Amino acid sequence: MKIVIAPDSFKGSMSSIEAANSIEKGILQAFPQAETILLPVGDGGEGTLETLVTATGGKTISVYVTGPLGGLIEAEYGILGDGETCVIEMAKASGLVLVPSAQLNPLKATTYGTGELIKKALDDGYKSFILALGGSATNDGGAGMLQALGLKILDENGEEIGFGGEQLRRVASIDLSSFDSRISQCTFLIASDVQNPFIGPDGASSVFGPQKGASPEDVAFLDHCLYNFAEVIEKETGVHLHDLPGAGAAGGIGGAFQAFFPSEMRRGIDVVIEYTKLNELVEGADLVITGEGKVDFQTASGKTPMGVAQTALKKNVPTIIIAGSVGKGVETLYQHGIVSVHSIINRPMELKECMHNAKELTEFAAEQVVRSFFYQTKINSRMG
Amino acid sequence: MKIVIAPDSFKGSMSSIEAANSIEKGILQAFPQAETILLPVGDGGEGTLETLVTATGGKTISVYVTGPLGGLIEAEYGILGDGETCVIEMAKASGLVLVPSAQLNPLKATTYGTGELIKKALDDGYKSFILALGGSATNDGGAGMLQALGLKILDENGEEIGFGGEQLRRVASIDLSSFDSRISQCTFLIASDVQNPFIGPDGASSVFGPQKGASPEDVAFLDHCLYNFAEVIEKETGVHLHDLPGAGAAGGIGGAFQAFFPSEMRRGIDVVIEYTKLNELVEGADLVITGEGKVDFQTASGKTPMGVAQTALKKNVPTIIIAGSVGKGVETLYQHGIVSVHSIINRPMELKECMHNAKELTEFAAEQVVRSFFYQTKINSRMG
Repeated sequence: MKIVIAPDSFKGSMSSIEAANSIEKGILQAFPQAETILLPVGDGGEGTLETLVTATGGKTISVYVTGPLGGLIEAEYGILGDGETCVIEMAKASGLVLVPSAQLNPLKATTYGTGELIKKALDDGYKSFILALGGSATNDGGAGMLQALGLKILDENGEEIGFGGEQLRRVASIDLSSFDSRISQCTFLIASDVQNPFIGPDGASSVFGPQKGASPEDVAFLDHCLYNFAEVIEKETGVHLHDLPGAGAAGGIGGAFQAFFPSEMRRGIDVVIEYTKLNELVEGADLVITGEGKVDFQTASGKTPMGVAQTALKKNVPTIIIAGSVGKGVETLYQHGIVSVHSIINRPMELKECMHNAKELTEFAAEQVVRSFFYQTKINSRMG
Repeated sequence: MKIVIAPDSFKGSMSSIEAANSIEKGILQAFPQAETILLPVGDGGEGTLETLVTATGGKTISVYVTGPLGGLIEAEYGILGDGETCVIEMAKASGLVLVPSAQLNPLKATTYGTGELIKKALDDGYKSFILALGGSATNDGGAGMLQALGLKILDENGEEIGFGGEQLRRVASIDLSSFDSRISQCTFLIASDVQNPFIGPDGASSVFGPQKGASPEDVAFLDHCLYNFAEVIEKETGVHLHDLPGAGAAGGIGGAFQAFFPSEMRRGIDVVIEYTKLNELVEGADLVITGEGKVDFQTASGKTPMGVAQTALKKNVPTIIIAGSVGKGVETLYQHGIVSVHSIINRPMELKECMHNAKELTEFAAEQVVRSFFYQTKINSRMG
């Protein structure tokens, strides 16, 4: 009996690692001899670095970089188990979680630290990069990141602009002469679920600005700033970021990568699945258990459990979902190889109690689910 | 795929019939071709009449009888599908549910109506009886029931006592000469889970008196009354009810049956299982689903799900429990043929919401459970 355990985090109550451990405990409670493979997965957003490093047996390297609002912070990049692939998670250097909510300010916040992380990894000799976007506090179109890597972003007086989205209104020209030449020799796989363009009503500022602290006036101003930056970039590089899908990811840094890096952008979960080698791990498994905080009809449109289930389905391995709460419409999941969907809740309780007891509840649910699922197997093996 | 659906009621939210219907809907949602056998069961207490009549395709006969506090009420007895076995549920004539809670009074309440039900069934020619105790409003030691069947219960002046537990203090002698002679030609199977004796700290008055409205003083007085009745019964019949297990059932009517009827007392669920022929129905089934409002370590000590599971286990059929809430200690159930235990709750919610949506939640839970349980079967049959 081989079971692959590949949950996402249960937001607010368990990390994906904690969820995986709880599910494993439940399984071993039911079948102490079961072979379990733990593969905590994320959706390619925040937590991707830990996911990939843990799953591949890699390591992390600490680096002091410039924080989103200036000032040194300790960040890290990851090296996968292959010793060659470097993971940069931009939230580590330029993330929302680094800024107290009262101080959030996308007019000022910079991606400079993310550029420093990349520079350090280049200095360390890495050439193959995974860039996990998402969770950024910034709206600077990746300007800070580009500056950290030597790009000169100049105003009409030929002076370099400062940090933050608001500075982009001043951009008049770009000087590529000092831009880190190693970048063109590298590959950058961008993990991002965001399909939004650089500017406009679906652009970075309009859609993601408010959650970074932008007022409606800020949003309009920032959108204008990004427009100006896009115009200059197009003039210098020929790349038209304005309505390019994905260019609006993480405050526009998606666009910066697309314009200046040899890059490919893929859905986060697909990157996670590829680099964790989930498709190899599920080979020959009897069951995959995945999970997340809430499962409903939206689950079918592409986050962790679906990606896991689709990978398993290709190997004819069934998937069961264990979730904090189960909403409407899960029947749409069945066609994707998902056998059944089970909540960890086992008595009337409030969300708070559920979150507080999430580990025990998950353990119990996993135990019951595998007891039921493998009943036939157990009987057959006893008879066989 | 044959599935027997044999739940108890989910107290406060679904009758056993509603629970069975919801479980069936969920099963058919998952496997429209599944063969389902619905057998809503109770624990042999209230609802036993409906359970047995429904399961055997029997019928009910309406009878006007004396209610617990006097006054005519419409009650009923049941005839099983065999056309021979008569079911008397004492709660129909002398039950708590017949008395508004403010009027509950075990000093006055009588089992006379239960005796009238029996008398009517005897008049109709029935000789094989199932007596379902439980849910009584009375504490009269079955005196009213005996009087309705001709027993003369006399005070020291040779006058018949009146209705209610308090009258038992007056009993000085019993005259069996007019007691219905047909009774000795009949069999009475008493369905009762109560092992309490007639009197004393574990007796009918002490343990069940308070829920029938007895104050502490009433309890002491009623216990004394039953003691007096027991003394007289012993003098006349030689039967020592005082500490006889089961004599304290339903306000002492258990003792009356044991002293004056050719009777056998059995656990309610065992009677239900025998007469519904559950053991025959589960033959060849792939799964039994049972359930009740709350499942925990106490479930192992003998109510519906355990009785169902044990019956199924004898035929090597696995049982799954679906419950409103799942408490601690269910692992003790596994040894009794219970594969797994699942709650109908699928998101954080209060008891009220759970009860309100019990049918839909049960349907969904049943669907997920059978999808998981029969996954292997489905795959094998597709391959076979």
